[in-house]
Amino acid sequence: MTQSPILVVTTGGTIDKQYFDALSEYQIAESIIQELLRTARVTHPFRVLELMRKDSLELDDGDRALIAATIAHAPETRVVVTHGTDTMTDTAQALAGLEGKTVVLCGALAPARFAESDAAFNLGMAFACCQAAPEGVWITMNGTVFDGLQVRKDRAAGKFVPR
Amino acid sequence: MTQSPILVVTTGGTIDKQYFDALSEYQIAESIIQELLRTARVTHPFRVLELMRKDSLELDDGDRALIAATIAHAPETRVVVTHGTDTMTDTAQALAGLEGKTVVLCGALAPARFAESDAAFNLGMAFACCQAAPEGVWITMNGTVFDGLQVRKDRAAGKFVPR
Amino acid sequence: MTQSPILVVTTGGTIDKQYFDALSEYQIAESIIQELLRTARVTHPFRVLELMRKDSLELDDGDRALIAATIAHAPETRVVVTHGTDTMTDTAQALAGLEGKTVVLCGALAPARFAESDAAFNLGMAFACCQAAPEGVWITMNGTVFDGLQVRKDRAAGKFVPR
Amino acid sequence: MTQSPILVVTTGGTIDKQYFDALSEYQIAESIIQELLRTARVTHPFRVLELMRKDSLELDDGDRALIAATIAHAPETRVVVTHGTDTMTDTAQALAGLEGKTVVLCGALAPARFAESDAAFNLGMAFACCQAAPEGVWITMNGTVFDGLQVRKDRAAGKFVPR
Repeated sequence: MTQSPILVVTTGGTIDKQYFDALSEYQIAESIIQELLRTARVTHPFRVLELMRKDSLELDDGDRALIAATIAHAPETRVVVTHGTDTMTDTAQALAGLEGKTVVLCGALAPARFAESDAAFNLGMAFACCQAAPEGVWITMNGTVFDGLQVRKDRAAGKFVPR
Repeated sequence: MTQSPILVVTTGGTIDKQYFDALSEYQIAESIIQELLRTARVTHPFRVLELMRKDSLELDDGDRALIAATIAHAPETRVVVTHGTDTMTDTAQALAGLEGKTVVLCGALAPARFAESDAAFNLGMAFACCQAAPEGVWITMNGTVFDGLQVRKDRAAGKFVPR
Repeated sequence: MTQSPILVVTTGGTIDKQYFDALSEYQIAESIIQELLRTARVTHPFRVLELMRKDSLELDDGDRALIAATIAHAPETRVVVTHGTDTMTDTAQALAGLEGKTVVLCGALAPARFAESDAAFNLGMAFACCQAAPEGVWITMNGTVFDGLQVRKDRAAGKFVPR
Repeated sequence: MTQSPILVVTTGGTIDKQYFDALSEYQIAESIIQELLRTARVTHPFRVLELMRKDSLELDDGDRALIAATIAHAPETRVVVTHGTDTMTDTAQALAGLEGKTVVLCGALAPARFAESDAAFNLGMAFACCQAAPEGVWITMNGTVFDGLQVRKDRAAGKFVPR
């Protein structure tokens, strides 16, 4: 296993949703990823890049091209992408074929700021997967390491399933 | 990546420490692992086996032999072992050479019942690692997937480092 | 101080907001008040009555009349009302003059399901206030026991202030 | 109700217990009270005085005399004392008769750093009680405002009950 540095690209999604009382609504806020990694006492070298703050339903082809280009040009070969769950598999498709990169997408079904969230577990999965898995695109949700091109979200059931 | 079932063997350690007011002290309690997996919305097939409830400083060779035998005879090939951190690497040595098994040890530096614990992240890492890594013994702590035979705990610094 | 039973009337508001992934939005869910009281290890006699699940901006005069009638006809003389913060002071006005009742309104600026919420603290204040304060209407928010008729919410600042 | 400033005296106890991995044990740490008040979004004027860090079983008459003198000489008339639960009622006796002071003792049966703790609720009760109750000594635990001289801890049951 490598100790090579990990790049964490944040794009928004439920995992980063905060509640704004003055608006009586939730919005994607400053990423909580740094705090999750601090709580997890991560000493592995990493770099967090807050690329965008969007609901994944708002992401378009241009956004996906930007994510791909960012990863392609980064020095790190191990990459975690935090992402909204609704179009996570679309982004996985857009990231296929990045040579020399192990890319893992993850997100959360409940905001990380909730007391009961899947965020820390999923992020932990992604950290391990990008170190242990071969080159390619992976998704770590619901306790499974999915091939990023062979998975879909079952929105009604609120979980990811093999395709 | 496989969707084959995961065996989770709990042995005690800080991760499962609860506070008992009537005793004014902490003791290892009923394992919280099931609850962590529920919070993480894990739908991947798994089985939890509460094998012992010990501080890892109390584990002896007989305990380690029991853990090894339990894994060797289990039908699952993907195994997570939750364990106290102080002698985690000793147990890793004892589990080396189990044929056909990917075994991942993890624990926590702060009890899982704390609001700020590394437990969920570490357990997520172990879940991903036992699916993505080849046969062998691994340790997932501090954000790194360590070769279980090439790592030690730096007790003063409160972290695992390569050996 | 009395040990007489406390009636807790829940009406909705931010305190009970849950996140629904399938809708990508937050809605008021089954009240979390019972769970907050269990976590607080409350052994004082109480009864929870889930009267409505509304954002306080949606409450109308009919709703307020119902809350008042419910309290007036309840056997308990000590009453806690959980409520959205935006129109909490309007409801306080509507509850003025209930003879023989100590009524305390509280809510939260962040949902109780968040790891960092003011919910438990505010509910604790309300529990103590309804036991210690004389007949009348009180609001317990931001660490202060306010006279319910002499307070307003400063929405921009996100806090309650004397009027 | 007054908006006069509140003095919070911390003396240690379970509420402030932290886990120290390097020692494999829990000890009373830097007080978490400031953080609880920040999370509760308290804007009421207050001052925190960390007087000692002791298990309440270790407190002696000299400690209790110091607590009493500190409160007697403080400019604030509204006082909250955080305290271990085992001898909380002994300290209440020692604080009886402080003229012009409303003193409220509280603590927690589970450390405030736990995800599921009664700490925030109990501290909220104390904040409200010291504003709403008349001069005297009170204890806010288990959802009840107790007369500080008419209560005992039932250690086996893990709760406070009237005496």
